[in-house]
Amino acid sequence: MPSALENLRSKTSDLDALHAALSMMEWDQQTFMPRGGAEARAEHVGLLSRMYHETLTSDELKRALELARSEAKSDDEIAMLRVVQRDIDQATKIPTALVEEKSKLASQAHESWVIARANNDFPSFAPLLARMFEIAKEEATHLGYKDHPYDALTDLYEEGATESYWRQMYESIKGPQVQLVKEIKESGKNIDDSKLYGEWDEAKQKTFTEFLVKEIGFDMDRGRQDTAAHPFCTGWSVGDIRLTTRYKPYIGSAIFGSLHEAGHGMYEQGSPMAWDRTPLAGGVSLGVHESQSRTWENLVGRSKSFWQKYLPVLQKAFPALTSFDLDGWYKAINKVEPSYIRVEADEVTYNLHTLVRFEIECDMLTGKMKINDLPEAWNAKYTEYLGITPRSDSEGCLQDVHWSGGSIGYFPTYSMGNLLSYQIWNAMEKEVGDANALMAKGEFKPILGWLQEKVYSQGKKYPPRELVQRVTGKPLDASDYLAGLGAKYREIYGL
Amino acid sequence: MPSALENLRSKTSDLDALHAALSMMEWDQQTFMPRGGAEARAEHVGLLSRMYHETLTSDELKRALELARSEAKSDDEIAMLRVVQRDIDQATKIPTALVEEKSKLASQAHESWVIARANNDFPSFAPLLARMFEIAKEEATHLGYKDHPYDALTDLYEEGATESYWRQMYESIKGPQVQLVKEIKESGKNIDDSKLYGEWDEAKQKTFTEFLVKEIGFDMDRGRQDTAAHPFCTGWSVGDIRLTTRYKPYIGSAIFGSLHEAGHGMYEQGSPMAWDRTPLAGGVSLGVHESQSRTWENLVGRSKSFWQKYLPVLQKAFPALTSFDLDGWYKAINKVEPSYIRVEADEVTYNLHTLVRFEIECDMLTGKMKINDLPEAWNAKYTEYLGITPRSDSEGCLQDVHWSGGSIGYFPTYSMGNLLSYQIWNAMEKEVGDANALMAKGEFKPILGWLQEKVYSQGKKYPPRELVQRVTGKPLDASDYLAGLGAKYREIYGL
Repeated sequence: MPSALENLRSKTSDLDALHAALSMMEWDQQTFMPRGGAEARAEHVGLLSRMYHETLTSDELKRALELARSEAKSDDEIAMLRVVQRDIDQATKIPTALVEEKSKLASQAHESWVIARANNDFPSFAPLLARMFEIAKEEATHLGYKDHPYDALTDLYEEGATESYWRQMYESIKGPQVQLVKEIKESGKNIDDSKLYGEWDEAKQKTFTEFLVKEIGFDMDRGRQDTAAHPFCTGWSVGDIRLTTRYKPYIGSAIFGSLHEAGHGMYEQGSPMAWDRTPLAGGVSLGVHESQSRTWENLVGRSKSFWQKYLPVLQKAFPALTSFDLDGWYKAINKVEPSYIRVEADEVTYNLHTLVRFEIECDMLTGKMKINDLPEAWNAKYTEYLGITPRSDSEGCLQDVHWSGGSIGYFPTYSMGNLLSYQIWNAMEKEVGDANALMAKGEFKPILGWLQEKVYSQGKKYPPRELVQRVTGKPLDASDYLAGLGAKYREIYGL
Repeated sequence: MPSALENLRSKTSDLDALHAALSMMEWDQQTFMPRGGAEARAEHVGLLSRMYHETLTSDELKRALELARSEAKSDDEIAMLRVVQRDIDQATKIPTALVEEKSKLASQAHESWVIARANNDFPSFAPLLARMFEIAKEEATHLGYKDHPYDALTDLYEEGATESYWRQMYESIKGPQVQLVKEIKESGKNIDDSKLYGEWDEAKQKTFTEFLVKEIGFDMDRGRQDTAAHPFCTGWSVGDIRLTTRYKPYIGSAIFGSLHEAGHGMYEQGSPMAWDRTPLAGGVSLGVHESQSRTWENLVGRSKSFWQKYLPVLQKAFPALTSFDLDGWYKAINKVEPSYIRVEADEVTYNLHTLVRFEIECDMLTGKMKINDLPEAWNAKYTEYLGITPRSDSEGCLQDVHWSGGSIGYFPTYSMGNLLSYQIWNAMEKEVGDANALMAKGEFKPILGWLQEKVYSQGKKYPPRELVQRVTGKPLDASDYLAGLGAKYREIYGL
């Protein structure tokens, strides 16, 4: 006779298996699928998603969860019940009819968005986007919230976050970041990174980036790296995490893309094997996840000490880069330049991109902004925060895929990742010592080991806000980030 | 209100989605999975298989099938009900406890077999194999049969086939094939194919084999080719068929492996799009499937006319092969040499390998043979049929994976494929004209078009024996095969 906990575990295993299938189908779709496979893939994903949803909202699972409550004793067991309860709640609160309408609208809207972006034609996309915001409001109502519909939506991505939480976060960084961008612009100092653009052999980029991610600690026996148009990290067990990267004329695309995804990947690889295929495995939230991708991309990969060891390796593979000395390379990969496109933004301007989206999302949800005013508002905010005005909606409000899929409340998690990466890094250095000295020797084990112990091995055990407190001794705040960013870029730009 | 047929179709769509997930997981396991993914993969496959089995044996599906009977009017609809009924019967007749025992034994036996083969240690594997044959007997009892337990088992792979069907097939070919092998041996003529072994650039092999499979008609927009230790073809929709190949010191491995799998693949790509994701899509049986892989591997790929066009292309990619003239190349790729290993066997000796297995399987099932007598019987049969005696069980009765997984009744379908490939080919040439003239010009469309119309586009609509009759105007028989094989190899060996 299996115990109630074992019974629950067997039900969550079914969910995990369906989720694994869905993740693999999505991975394959972005990496290897021939175009003829698209139609059937959409059907398969739709059907398996329905099965997943049915299992998650089934009375059997709810009963199994209730019965397991009296048996759950250890912290881990109690945490597991909490995570399952949250998953069930999210899946149950929104009526099936609304889920289905959203799913249909999302696939329509995605198609419309692709065309609208290609043709710089916001008006053709606007009615669908307006409906998507309406659906988001309905979702928020069903999910429930106290102060702002944003609270309910953003909680889906970042447990415990609210509109006021994000507003506070942005308020603390907006002034200093706009100021820093302005100072850099006014310094008149132009960093030449033109030599980073060229025709780079793909096989060599593959070899070099796989070398790098292995160096920092991504375990290739428990993962791999392929290519995708829009790099991402996914996986379906602690022992099988898939990275992707891309090869572009800008050599930084592959290098920093790989390090970024490897950061996500090492977080996923770091869950305890005992939690594999259970609700406790994996990263706890988008913001915490992003903190780790940004750690390995920026704090490690864009540091000078990292390249002390690896620039010669890079130059051996790509002799066209030998004209760089360490300082020139360091400056080139950290060049700051306000630009229209979020995914190409440098470290200094990045948060201003997400701020624009956050403010627009809030105003759309409250009805303060109307759909037809969106493009103009977008452009005005870019002018104000970044000092540049998009020349078209394609490079303006049509650039991101998120809204067409109904992901509203998502963007601030990117910025949380930026802030938190510095905050966790400082906590790490307090215990591990000077990270630069380690990186210059290619010794990542102490750094990874600390992150592993404090963050990765915790999986989803603690809600993200509690995890941040435990790891760094304080709630999320901008001080480490602003100090770190300011010091780094004032030094680079001689301000 | 959906019709009863639509309701049935929606249930089979669920089966198809689960099957797609399972196929993709198996594909990934053989192509890309890092070794750390194995444990979770086994669990995921186990759980999704259980869901598939539960859905297939559910009362809902059975009811949906019964209700659809009165609505089914067209040939296609009636055929679909027949296929679903067969699937349900196969899944229902064997008790769950036996399925589970077999599944557990299979994974144990597989592990044991790997070790036994590596250590040439049949006795360590024997008890598990003996139990597997016992389970097979029980399966046969549950499935039901009239004359021989083999009938029930082999029907799982080749609908309508029986022990006597296969025995007849082997009786008609055994004598002439043993005789042909003997004549070739006694001719004393040795074909030198040593130049086919070397170190061949993998990227070039990839380019060349992908070129070849596209030339013959495999649609790369609806499929792709990757590498695997043991090449196979799979897929999860008419628009997404995956080939695999391998790169070995013998350059024929990649070339003929790719053509073979592309034959399977074109068969799968040839189902009508309207049948995609329904029970009617895909190849109808293992024997018919193998006839198509062997057609493109042997009748096309090992013909002289094919290489009239493609030998120069091959030689351009691999200058080390320029010493071959067309005749020398043709002979080298058709070299006959009795060998111990089935998967490396040439066209002339291949069926003798499966005959050995067929006879042993029959005798094991009836109890005529005991497990400890198996190795000796194996070696005696090789000596008799092939004129060579395996020097160890590793290159003898331990060589194949099939038995460890409980696939008993499978091997004769390989030989059926060989026979049927010639039988269908002759029917095709009667209507299309001289295939050699077409192949010499690289014109495969008339050949593929005929196969497409007569075989591939029929999917699973007709039971295989009926399909053979429809396509070739007669039941499976050995005359075309024996005549074709004899003529080809007597010419090559000047007999």
